[in-house]
Amino acid sequence: RARAARLVLSDGFQRLVIGLILLNAVTLGLETSATLSESWGGLLRALDVTLLCLFTAELALRIYAFRGRFFRDPWGIFDLLVVGIAWLPATGPLSVVRALRVLRVLRLMSIMPSLRHVVEAMLHALPGMGSIVLLMGLIFYVFAVMATKLFGEILPERFGTLGESLFTLFQLMTLESWAEANVRPIMEQQPLAWLFFLPFILLATFVVLNLFIGVIVESIQT
Amino acid sequence: RARAARLVLSDGFQRLVIGLILLNAVTLGLETSATLSESWGGLLRALDVTLLCLFTAELALRIYAFRGRFFRDPWGIFDLLVVGIAWLPATGPLSVVRALRVLRVLRLMSIMPSLRHVVEAMLHALPGMGSIVLLMGLIFYVFAVMATKLFGEILPERFGTLGESLFTLFQLMTLESWAEANVRPIMEQQPLAWLFFLPFILLATFVVLNLFIGVIVESIQT
Amino acid sequence: RARAARLVLSDGFQRLVIGLILLNAVTLGLETSATLSESWGGLLRALDVTLLCLFTAELALRIYAFRGRFFRDPWGIFDLLVVGIAWLPATGPLSVVRALRVLRVLRLMSIMPSLRHVVEAMLHALPGMGSIVLLMGLIFYVFAVMATKLFGEILPERFGTLGESLFTLFQLMTLESWAEANVRPIMEQQPLAWLFFLPFILLATFVVLNLFIGVIVESIQT
Amino acid sequence: RARAARLVLSDGFQRLVIGLILLNAVTLGLETSATLSESWGGLLRALDVTLLCLFTAELALRIYAFRGRFFRDPWGIFDLLVVGIAWLPATGPLSVVRALRVLRVLRLMSIMPSLRHVVEAMLHALPGMGSIVLLMGLIFYVFAVMATKLFGEILPERFGTLGESLFTLFQLMTLESWAEANVRPIMEQQPLAWLFFLPFILLATFVVLNLFIGVIVESIQT
Ligand code: NA
Ligand code: NA
Repeated sequence: RARAARLVLSDGFQRLVIGLILLNAVTLGLETSATLSESWGGLLRALDVTLLCLFTAELALRIYAFRGRFFRDPWGIFDLLVVGIAWLPATGPLSVVRALRVLRVLRLMSIMPSLRHVVEAMLHALPGMGSIVLLMGLIFYVFAVMATKLFGEILPERFGTLGESLFTLFQLMTLESWAEANVRPIMEQQPLAWLFFLPFILLATFVVLNLFIGVIVESIQT
Repeated sequence: RARAARLVLSDGFQRLVIGLILLNAVTLGLETSATLSESWGGLLRALDVTLLCLFTAELALRIYAFRGRFFRDPWGIFDLLVVGIAWLPATGPLSVVRALRVLRVLRLMSIMPSLRHVVEAMLHALPGMGSIVLLMGLIFYVFAVMATKLFGEILPERFGTLGESLFTLFQLMTLESWAEANVRPIMEQQPLAWLFFLPFILLATFVVLNLFIGVIVESIQT
Repeated sequence: RARAARLVLSDGFQRLVIGLILLNAVTLGLETSATLSESWGGLLRALDVTLLCLFTAELALRIYAFRGRFFRDPWGIFDLLVVGIAWLPATGPLSVVRALRVLRVLRLMSIMPSLRHVVEAMLHALPGMGSIVLLMGLIFYVFAVMATKLFGEILPERFGTLGESLFTLFQLMTLESWAEANVRPIMEQQPLAWLFFLPFILLATFVVLNLFIGVIVESIQT
Repeated sequence: RARAARLVLSDGFQRLVIGLILLNAVTLGLETSATLSESWGGLLRALDVTLLCLFTAELALRIYAFRGRFFRDPWGIFDLLVVGIAWLPATGPLSVVRALRVLRVLRLMSIMPSLRHVVEAMLHALPGMGSIVLLMGLIFYVFAVMATKLFGEILPERFGTLGESLFTLFQLMTLESWAEANVRPIMEQQPLAWLFFLPFILLATFVVLNLFIGVIVESIQT
C-alpha cells in the first residue's frame, strides 16, 4: 500500500496520467468530426475504451492506496464521478450521457497543481455569496410570478409559464436584447410595463454588482 | 404584552412564519399555471386567503407587542405594505394589484436575519450615491430633450416624445442594441448623429462606472 | 463691486438661480411636446427668452463682480458657453443650435455644490487616463485601416471607409451585436476573419478594463 | 558605434522618427479611400516606399549601434517584425500581408515612453493570468465537445463543428445575443438545453470576473 501511494504520487506517474488525459481530449475532440468519425471511428472508439479502462485502473489504485482519505477529498469524488459517468448505459433516454464522457478531461483540474489552486481559490469565494444568491433567487421568484400574471398573455412564449418567465428575467439581467426583444414588444401593448421592468433591471444588476464586489473584497483581503 | 413580544421573537414562531411564507410562495407559484389553476384553483385560493389572514393576525400581534417601535422600524412598514396590499380591492383598473400579492413573499427578507443583513448592507451604499444619481438624471434630461428635437422625426417610436427618448437613452446606456437598432438607423439619415450618441454613451457609462466605484470603495472601507 | 460679489454668493441668490434653471428645464421639456407647443408655444417661447435674458444678466453681474477670476475658473467658461450658445443665430445650417439651448440646464452642475464636487472628482481621474486613451486611439486607427482593406468590399456599409470602420470597431468594443451583425456575416465569406476580430475584441476589452482599473485605483488612493 | 548610439538616443532623432511614423499613419489612412487612391495613389505609394526605406535604415542603425542588446530587447524584435512585414511578397495567397503594413504605425508604442510604460504595465498583469486562461481553455474545450454532440444537428451553422462551437461559446461568454440568436432557437427543439447553457454562462462569466479581479488586485498591490 505504501508503495502504491508512492507510485501514485510520483512525478512520472502524474505526468503519464496528464499525457493520457490530453490524448483522450484529442480523441474525444476528433470524434466530433463526422468525416473523421466515419473513417477512423473504430480506432477512436477503441482508444477511448482503452483510456477509460486505464483511468478506472488508476482510480482503483488510488483508492487502494489512500482508502478513506480518497473519499474524504472532494477532488477524489470529482474524479470518481467524471470517470464513472462513462460506465453508465448510454442508450434510449440516457443517450445524453454519451456527450458527458468528455467531462473526463476536466480531471486535468484535479491533477495539475496550478489549475487545482486556481479552482480552489475561486471556490473559496462561493460560501460568502450564499446570502446574496438566496436574495437573488427570492427576487427572481417574486418578479417571475408577477411577470407571468401581468405579461403571460401578451408574450406567451416568453412569460407564459413560471419557468419561461424565470428564463426571460435571467436574460434581462444579463441585459441581452432586453429592450428590443422583450420590453419594447410588451410596451407596445402595455405602455406602463417599464414600471415593472426598469426597477427589475436596476435591482438585478445592483445585486449582481454586490455579488461581484463581495468576490473582489474577499480576494483583496486574502 | 411582554409575553406577546417573547412569543413573536421566539425561534419557533419565526420558523413557523418562514414556513407559512414558503408555503404561500408555492401556492402563488402554482396559481400561475393555467391547468393547475383550473383543477385546484379553489383550494389554492382558499389556502391563499387563510395564509393572508394568518399573516395579518401575526402583524397585528407584532403591533400589539411593539407598538410605536414597530412603526419606527422600516422593516415593520415594509411588512405592513406587502401584506396590506392584498386587502386592496383588485377590480377594474386596479386588477394589477392582484399581481402584487406575491410581494408578500418578500417578507422572507425581513424575517430571515441573513437576508436582512445583506439587504441592509446593500442599502447602506445608496445614500452615498445620491449626488451621482442626481447628476445622471440631469444628463439624461438634457440629452433626452436634445434627442427629441434632433431625432424625433427620424425615429418617432424611439425619440418621438420626451418619455420615449428617456427610455431609449436608458437602453443606450445599457449598451443593448445601441448601434444596430438605434444609432445606425439614425445615422442613415443624419450621418453626423454619432457626434451626439458617442459622447452620450461615453459619458453615461463613465458615470455608471463611477457609481460602481463608489459602491466598491464604500464596501472596501467598511 | 464687493456688494455685487456678496449678492452673487448669497444663499438666496443661488436658490433663485437654481429655481430659474429648474423652471427653464420644465419649459424646454414642455416644448418637446408637439401638442403643448401648438397651444402654449407662444407663452413657452416668451418665458424662455425672459429666462435667457435673466441668465445673461446674472452672468454679466458675475463678470462685473469677479472679472479675471471669473474667466480663470473653468466653471465660469462653462456657464458662459452654455448660456451664450442661445444667442447664436439658429437659422439654416445652424438649426441644430436650437437643440443645444437645453445645455443651459447643465448650469445646475456648476451652481449646486454637491453636483460640482461629484463632477470635479470624476474629472480628476481623467488626466491619468491620457496614455491609455492615446494607446486606444492608436489601436483603433491601426485596426480600422486593416479592417477597411480586408473587409471593405465584403460589408461596405460597415467597413467601406476609415470612418465607418472606426465606428464599427467601437461597436465591437462595446460587444454590441459584435457576432450576429458584424463578425458572423463577414465569416460567411472569409472563414478566417475571427483571426482579426477575436484579437481585437480581447485587446480592446483588456485596454478598457485597464482604463477602469486606473479609475478605481485612483479613487481608492484618494 | 558610440556616436551612432548617441544619435539614435537623441531627442531630435526620436522626434524625427515619431514624425515620420505619424506621416506614414496618414498616408496609410489616405490609401483606404478609393477616390484618393485613384488620384494620388502614385504619390502615396512613393511616400510609403520612401518611409519604409527610412525605417529600415533607422533599424539598421539601431542594430549597428546596440548589436546583441537590440535583439534581447523585446521591443527591438517588435520593431523588426512590424517593419519587416512590409518586405514580404504580397502576392497571391499572401495578399493579406498588404493589409498588415499598417502595423508599422504601432512602433509609436515602442518609441514613445508614455505609451511604452502603459503597455509594459498592462503586460505585467498577463503572467499571473496564465492558470486562469488555461482553466478557461479547458472549460471551453470540454463544453465545445459536448455542445457539438448535443446541438450540432439542431443548429449546424453554430454548433456543427468543434471550431464553430468554440466560436459560439465565446459569443455566449460575451453575452452577445446569447438568448435571442443561440439558446432560444435551441430550446425550441430541446426545452432542457438551458441545463447546459446557463451553467456554462454562469461558469464562464465567473471565471472572467476572477480574471478581472486578478488584474485589479495585481494593480492595487503595485
Ligand atoms: Na449586449
Ligand atoms: Na444585443
